[in-house]
Amino acid sequence: MDVYEKALQCHERWGGKWEVKSKTKVENADDLSVAYTPGVAQPCLEIKKDAENAYKYTLKHNLVAVVSDGSAVLGLGNIGALAAMPVMEGKCILFKEFAGVDAVPVVLDTQDVDEVVRTVKNIAPSFGGINLEDISAPRCFEIERRLKEELDIPVMHDDQHGTAIVVLAAVINSLKVVGKKADEITCVINGMGAAGTSIANLLMTYGVKKMICCDRDGILNDKNAVLPHHRELVKKTGSGGRSGTLADALKGADLFVGVSVAGCVTPEMVSSMNNGIIFAMANPKPEIMPDVAKAAGAAVVGTGRSDFPNQINNVLAFPGVFRGAFDSKAKKITEGMKLAAAEAIASLISEEELSADNVIPSPFDKRVAAVVAGAVQDKAVEENVVR
Amino acid sequence: MDVYEKALQCHERWGGKWEVKSKTKVENADDLSVAYTPGVAQPCLEIKKDAENAYKYTLKHNLVAVVSDGSAVLGLGNIGALAAMPVMEGKCILFKEFAGVDAVPVVLDTQDVDEVVRTVKNIAPSFGGINLEDISAPRCFEIERRLKEELDIPVMHDDQHGTAIVVLAAVINSLKVVGKKADEITCVINGMGAAGTSIANLLMTYGVKKMICCDRDGILNDKNAVLPHHRELVKKTGSGGRSGTLADALKGADLFVGVSVAGCVTPEMVSSMNNGIIFAMANPKPEIMPDVAKAAGAAVVGTGRSDFPNQINNVLAFPGVFRGAFDSKAKKITEGMKLAAAEAIASLISEEELSADNVIPSPFDKRVAAVVAGAVQDKAVEENVVR
Repeated sequence: MDVYEKALQCHERWGGKWEVKSKTKVENADDLSVAYTPGVAQPCLEIKKDAENAYKYTLKHNLVAVVSDGSAVLGLGNIGALAAMPVMEGKCILFKEFAGVDAVPVVLDTQDVDEVVRTVKNIAPSFGGINLEDISAPRCFEIERRLKEELDIPVMHDDQHGTAIVVLAAVINSLKVVGKKADEITCVINGMGAAGTSIANLLMTYGVKKMICCDRDGILNDKNAVLPHHRELVKKTGSGGRSGTLADALKGADLFVGVSVAGCVTPEMVSSMNNGIIFAMANPKPEIMPDVAKAAGAAVVGTGRSDFPNQINNVLAFPGVFRGAFDSKAKKITEGMKLAAAEAIASLISEEELSADNVIPSPFDKRVAAVVAGAVQDKAVEENVVR
Repeated sequence: MDVYEKALQCHERWGGKWEVKSKTKVENADDLSVAYTPGVAQPCLEIKKDAENAYKYTLKHNLVAVVSDGSAVLGLGNIGALAAMPVMEGKCILFKEFAGVDAVPVVLDTQDVDEVVRTVKNIAPSFGGINLEDISAPRCFEIERRLKEELDIPVMHDDQHGTAIVVLAAVINSLKVVGKKADEITCVINGMGAAGTSIANLLMTYGVKKMICCDRDGILNDKNAVLPHHRELVKKTGSGGRSGTLADALKGADLFVGVSVAGCVTPEMVSSMNNGIIFAMANPKPEIMPDVAKAAGAAVVGTGRSDFPNQINNVLAFPGVFRGAFDSKAKKITEGMKLAAAEAIASLISEEELSADNVIPSPFDKRVAAVVAGAVQDKAVEENVVR
């Protein structure tokens, strides 16, 4: 039985991967009078007096809504809200299992940007944070930006920033393996959707100066960049007058990050790089297979897959990021907190352990979430973005 | 320490009365590939093929949203969404503890009717049912009506219908105690808000023919009925040309139901009734105290309080109603299903047990939810309102 058949059987048996658990029994009139009426009036009134008390007397302090409109689910595309539910439930149990964060799926019967923003704002009082998930680009950028502006709780589109954090962690350690510095390297990213855009931005924030962003028409420039986020990248990377294919871009480059399509990178392209670091994360088939890339001279290779070394998996980031945000009572998730999360993940590979085949911890390394949470918490306090 | 102090302490210790529990462990790559990527794609695709499969592969089949805008919370009034959270969390754990229904609180940062309707519609794909809670009249009527029309999942405003079901159950058994029939009695209801209106309607559906609805200005009539739901009641009960105080209405009446204010019924009014049945449910102080009503000649007295006989408590109804709706895959909750629920609750008091001080089961009678669920399920199938 393959993994798809097994998943289907398990999902039917589970009938939903999560459930509600009461923290208290309600077996008699005394229980009821404390957990419900009339006693419950007291925490209500305390919250009415001071909204901050909601964090003290309700689950708001630990509760994330995993919100999706089903417009870009896994590699399946726009399958809609209902069909996205199994993914969102999966995300929710990862939040709980990896970092003790309570999370519930909220899938939306609309794909209109204004309507998504307004719906999430309307339900926001129930939650301590919003994890946006599987929302297509470029809609995801506006949705996230507006929600971050208008809400005073952490909002993060994980497809963008979770991925970017884990890639940066892997890059930090890969640069140690090849003995290069971030501000000296040339980085090429292929696929400027949600993840690619956030990866480009976070790598530049970290210190990468030479960044080349490619999409379907090769290097993004003044002619082929139409979407607003592509135009912004052109401006930020200074590639307006430049043109060329992905192959052109990769010549002499030090780092390739692919969030694009299977097989778009050839061995020749890898050979043309400068002792290249390759993160080929197209799923399930990467831009180039790791053994092929290695044979062509790649120094470090990572993918999204669990059956090769250096797996880039978002689960290394999002549970700890929200854990840290909640523990610090952060009002938002900043660039600084994301950098801190990446550095924390990278730090878990010691100098002795570090090698071309070991630049990033396993998704099941139990230390990760706590270390990420600690770093995010410290940074939130340092930046004074806490309640 | 009184119950309010104790409730505050407990709520702080709990930090939210519920939590998310994963139904499966995610400890290694195999677990992850089945509960999350890549395996999770399979249930997604099955739901994409047939939306009905969401009930099979996700928690939708058992998940209720407890939705409130915080506009009429307990006896506290319009305290807003955030302050309503402890009540909604309480409701959620009652759903789980009494009937195994998973429920999560969704409090809304809007009190605009259109906006509430649209928000609930937008998040509806995540849920198998909607329990509206603590929404003020008359807004609650339009919100419920529109959501029932526009959604194909059960929607119930519990303040209205949960209360009405339990009152009807108590009335059914009280009529046996006094040896009267529903279609012969005169019923007076005081307080025509959400609960009073629904009680009047359900009692009439059950067979009560002589119904007198009173509000602040006494008997509702063509002159004093301004709100649409009051005008409808005038029309339905034929009281347009009638006038009089609550005291006038009660003369010779057989049944009084109060969802109004403390102390508005005097011993004299009770004495003027015809061997009256009294349900005085103003909270925490009833319209008349049970001992006073008894001394004035009441045949049966019930209140909302746990420290007197015949406690009218919604928890007798809503957990079993949604359990039955879910078990039958009902698309809505009909008048027939509500009647069936009331009769099921009443049936749990045997002829031998039945007395003036025992017309309704205890909220903690463990048989209630299952018996209600069974009756609701049977009725849903009989009425063919199932998926």
